[in-house]
Amino acid sequence: MYELGVVYRSIQRTDANVADKLGAFGSATVHEAMGRVGLMKPGMRPIYAGAQVSGTAVTVLLQPGDNWMLHVAAEQIRPGDVVVAAVTAECSDGFFGELLATSFKARGARALVIDGGCRDVKPLTEMAFPVWSRAVSAKGTVKATLGSVNIPVVCAGALVHPGDVIVADDDGVVCVPRARAAATLAAAAKREANESEKRAKLASGVLGLDMYEMRAPLAAAGLRYVD
Amino acid sequence: MYELGVVYRSIQRTDANVADKLGAFGSATVHEAMGRVGLMKPGMRPIYAGAQVSGTAVTVLLQPGDNWMLHVAAEQIRPGDVVVAAVTAECSDGFFGELLATSFKARGARALVIDGGCRDVKPLTEMAFPVWSRAVSAKGTVKATLGSVNIPVVCAGALVHPGDVIVADDDGVVCVPRARAAATLAAAAKREANESEKRAKLASGVLGLDMYEMRAPLAAAGLRYVD
Amino acid sequence: MYELGVVYRSIQRTDANVADKLGAFGSATVHEAMGRVGLMKPGMRPIYAGAQVSGTAVTVLLQPGDNWMLHVAAEQIRPGDVVVAAVTAECSDGFFGELLATSFKARGARALVIDGGCRDVKPLTEMAFPVWSRAVSAKGTVKATLGSVNIPVVCAGALVHPGDVIVADDDGVVCVPRARAAATLAAAAKREANESEKRAKLASGVLGLDMYEMRAPLAAAGLRYVD
Amino acid sequence: MYELGVVYRSIQRTDANVADKLGAFGSATVHEAMGRVGLMKPGMRPIYAGAQVSGTAVTVLLQPGDNWMLHVAAEQIRPGDVVVAAVTAECSDGFFGELLATSFKARGARALVIDGGCRDVKPLTEMAFPVWSRAVSAKGTVKATLGSVNIPVVCAGALVHPGDVIVADDDGVVCVPRARAAATLAAAAKREANESEKRAKLASGVLGLDMYEMRAPLAAAGLRYVD
Amino acid sequence: MYELGVVYRSIQRTDANVADKLGAFGSATVHEAMGRVGLMKPGMRPIYAGAQVSGTAVTVLLQPGDNWMLHVAAEQIRPGDVVVAAVTAECSDGFFGELLATSFKARGARALVIDGGCRDVKPLTEMAFPVWSRAVSAKGTVKATLGSVNIPVVCAGALVHPGDVIVADDDGVVCVPRARAAATLAAAAKREANESEKRAKLASGVLGLDMYEMRAPLAAAGLRYVD
Amino acid sequence: MYELGVVYRSIQRTDANVADKLGAFGSATVHEAMGRVGLMKPGMRPIYAGAQVSGTAVTVLLQPGDNWMLHVAAEQIRPGDVVVAAVTAECSDGFFGELLATSFKARGARALVIDGGCRDVKPLTEMAFPVWSRAVSAKGTVKATLGSVNIPVVCAGALVHPGDVIVADDDGVVCVPRARAAATLAAAAKREANESEKRAKLASGVLGLDMYEMRAPLAAAGLRYVD
Repeated sequence: MYELGVVYRSIQRTDANVADKLGAFGSATVHEAMGRVGLMKPGMRPIYAGAQVSGTAVTVLLQPGDNWMLHVAAEQIRPGDVVVAAVTAECSDGFFGELLATSFKARGARALVIDGGCRDVKPLTEMAFPVWSRAVSAKGTVKATLGSVNIPVVCAGALVHPGDVIVADDDGVVCVPRARAAATLAAAAKREANESEKRAKLASGVLGLDMYEMRAPLAAAGLRYVD
Repeated sequence: MYELGVVYRSIQRTDANVADKLGAFGSATVHEAMGRVGLMKPGMRPIYAGAQVSGTAVTVLLQPGDNWMLHVAAEQIRPGDVVVAAVTAECSDGFFGELLATSFKARGARALVIDGGCRDVKPLTEMAFPVWSRAVSAKGTVKATLGSVNIPVVCAGALVHPGDVIVADDDGVVCVPRARAAATLAAAAKREANESEKRAKLASGVLGLDMYEMRAPLAAAGLRYVD
Repeated sequence: MYELGVVYRSIQRTDANVADKLGAFGSATVHEAMGRVGLMKPGMRPIYAGAQVSGTAVTVLLQPGDNWMLHVAAEQIRPGDVVVAAVTAECSDGFFGELLATSFKARGARALVIDGGCRDVKPLTEMAFPVWSRAVSAKGTVKATLGSVNIPVVCAGALVHPGDVIVADDDGVVCVPRARAAATLAAAAKREANESEKRAKLASGVLGLDMYEMRAPLAAAGLRYVD
Repeated sequence: MYELGVVYRSIQRTDANVADKLGAFGSATVHEAMGRVGLMKPGMRPIYAGAQVSGTAVTVLLQPGDNWMLHVAAEQIRPGDVVVAAVTAECSDGFFGELLATSFKARGARALVIDGGCRDVKPLTEMAFPVWSRAVSAKGTVKATLGSVNIPVVCAGALVHPGDVIVADDDGVVCVPRARAAATLAAAAKREANESEKRAKLASGVLGLDMYEMRAPLAAAGLRYVD
Repeated sequence: MYELGVVYRSIQRTDANVADKLGAFGSATVHEAMGRVGLMKPGMRPIYAGAQVSGTAVTVLLQPGDNWMLHVAAEQIRPGDVVVAAVTAECSDGFFGELLATSFKARGARALVIDGGCRDVKPLTEMAFPVWSRAVSAKGTVKATLGSVNIPVVCAGALVHPGDVIVADDDGVVCVPRARAAATLAAAAKREANESEKRAKLASGVLGLDMYEMRAPLAAAGLRYVD
Repeated sequence: MYELGVVYRSIQRTDANVADKLGAFGSATVHEAMGRVGLMKPGMRPIYAGAQVSGTAVTVLLQPGDNWMLHVAAEQIRPGDVVVAAVTAECSDGFFGELLATSFKARGARALVIDGGCRDVKPLTEMAFPVWSRAVSAKGTVKATLGSVNIPVVCAGALVHPGDVIVADDDGVVCVPRARAAATLAAAAKREANESEKRAKLASGVLGLDMYEMRAPLAAAGLRYVD
């Protein structure tokens, strides 16, 4: 994989309506609805608590210590996109800050997900532009080596194609492939519907042991109770 | 240690009054009062800032990627308990989320301490159910392999017996063995009393060097001052 | 380096006016203005979000698990100082808490930067005394072995001389050597002036590609666009 | 990505001759010949020094703490294959040991690359079956939950399709996509040819500064020499 | 737990014959025979490859940066013991080196297991005194603060009582409680007997799928094969 | 600190005789003789076991993912030097491999110490050119951004001036400032002389408790023995 020095301008984005609705479910429910795949590593953390977004992926491949391609990516952003940046090596530099966020926001981006570092945490928080990153660092980067835009990338362990749906919140970041987005949305909705009912039962004191009918399989597995 | 596939239903809890009072002192004071032992590894962090709890331990031993035993544990919870979950291997999966928290809360649990991952950070924060964990991850778990409930466990480096007192806040998590709880409470109270007085002196500009009479031992150890 | 068992009482502090003004720019701008050097490792994190300080460094060299020298350092603090503490080995113990913070604050210190652990996060937050540290731990320390005060130290990878300027915020901690402080301030001011203009342009939708005139060098480097 | 519960029996392997020849160049040269992409994270280490292998990938997706799919994968191995195992969560358990290695070897596998743990290091070393893993752990695993065999996987940050070429040695593990294998082999051979000549020059004392004609670009970049 | 400042001189050691025989099986087999509990964290690594030992535990609790108690422990060593050292905080200092190893060896110790750092790797290798540690560091330690000897300790996540059996090799370190040693030995022997037969079958090309009769449960779990 | 884009050609090296003799003592003894300062972080590991070197430092400051300055440094090497490379950000790339090692060796360098990654481990081992690094990675680097040569650098937490003595072995890497080299050599020699005698005593069964006369201070500190 990984063609270097190329920008794909025509990408097929997941239907915006589907992408938006997936975001409302949050990463944990969407991850379950996907069959428990597509999650980025838990080291990807939001720079401030409480943000919850979804959008269609514009992907970027960066070189360590070099954010040139983020500027190239800005031009490819359309309203509703989430930029997903992979780096060819582990690097905690602050590839992204207030100025790029201003530009991304003006283009309609909803968030950045970067397998590297971010800076300007306070201004980004004030302008409500959320970033999920593996580090925070004041260290800036150069603009010297080509990467690519809108090629498939592996970001924090997850494969992301341009146009896939990204769902991110306090629990992490999940990628839903475009071809599975509609089915995932349906599965998430079904799952969520069940959860409301379960929540009410559990809140009333019903045990999961009974609600999920676990007592028999636990006994079959050999669980012993000792008084 | 570590008997697998067993649930102890009858555990001896530390007196609730003692457990409650220990919580008011916070983990740092209680840890000092214990003689500086019993602290979990500093990687155990609260999912939101500001929570401060104490309670009697219901212990759980989990298998990696499997939260079956948390459902079994729910039935053993009594009001005032804190659930302490160890895992037989390092695993960052999200073993615990909103539904289990709803159930735990309905049973009277005050918090979860887990040497693994947690998810649903936003709903848990909204329902004010604190969790101390070593990771946050949207990844759910299966229900396939037995662990145990209410056996002694090592959680994040600390040995916890069922019924011990758990004190947790922004500084970390400390375990006070049941047999030492009353003595630790007395020591903590004595320590705290001293602290108020010291705080006032230091706030007025008195130096610790003088208040603790450190100048002589420092000189004896060979400390030199150079102008 | 590292003379042990000595306290230098006479240090040359950077001009307070310069130190104060550097703080207003924040760590990222100051780091850029320095030519991208002087930054501490990104693992140095504030104990609460939003703090932004600057001040003149009083340096301390600690032994692992031992905070004796922080008491010695307190006496050397003057209003406007930031205490910078290195440790001779990696140690996550809570070297610093509420009592020392009370003393430091009474002496006029603005913050602590420590390549070790901190405790009493909640009271420190309430008294608005910010700490940048590599860990939070309830574990206290002994007072048994000498280190030094106001010698040059390496803290989280950055060399700090007593009297240097420390700038710290959510993005990290940067050290500006005394001899370069005035020039750095001038460079930071110039940089910031440029940024306002750039920010406005980017917010209006102008692309960095055009504003920075990157299209030609990108083409020269071989970047291809594919429709 | 990541279809669960499926085994693809018909995969297109890279030509064995090409795969074998790539191995002779080693991971660093192949990675360069690929344009510096396709490398797994540096945390993937061989269990013993000096092994150097290449082969065609049979891929496996495992669940944390569960090695069931490695048994399923064994049947799909053909002589000359290298098994590449990803895990759906970070897990250091020892998924693989002497018995599986005996089986893999009997089927013709040359090595295992696993983004998890390995055990039986001593017998594996004695039987000269190399493993690249992110951990060594005596802890075994259960056989309870389905994963998949021969689907595309992300292993230690690298995307691997079944049939791709894996090159592994003391420097790490690189994946060469099937479609690029022949071109990569040609590029590696060309690169290696150049290297012999360069090595001789450098050994004779010629400087890289002169051999690569770096003096002019260094001066252009502003490098100053001070006597 | 953790009584400080005390040395227990009379400990009940596991029968030497049992301890010796357990060592021959290695940590992975013993860990399985224990029911997959009792293993230390995988970060505990031998300072040289190939060592395989077992013995009865003499336990030590150390303070960070302080090895005083290792000298106290030396006197409690009897031939056939393995010293197990926990530290009250994470610390990578080199607590142990050639001189202590000389003394330990003279007393009959077979190895050291330490949840901290070790130094003098080359002389220790030459004198064939194995150490399992979480770090290697040239940094020495002071002798200033009391810990304890022969109290129960948590070392790298495993609870160890004095007199328990320690089995350590390239795969890691496992602790077998004294009361379970004989049963574990029997279970390990039984397990090993089975393994020889299995190894021969697998070497002849029989698949684990058939040998373990996994095809039916895999199909029941829903595994699909695609040609 | 950290002037960028400059090469200092005239550096004052420590006397070669002193540098050579320090190496014979090893990093642990030298570190003790220095008063326990000057050690690099324990994460700096040799690429193969058993190497033990010393030499005078030629220092390099690198940018992440960029090894241009190593080529510049090669010209400044004189026989007996050890190259010490710091990086302005954490980066595990393989900055150094066989070709540079051939050049360094031809210039008389004895080793490289780099706070980044190294590659070509097998050829470097075969040519017996030792490297201490924090990572091994097959990933190469670009030549695009200036750093400096022979400025003071912080490498893995230790301050190194050009011309200082570097001592490196299996235990780690220590830096001895030029001005303290002779005194450190004397202290190391004295220390070593004592050690031979101590070693003999300990080997004969004498306890450190008696040899170091620790029984009284231990009793004074409150150590209790329980039978």
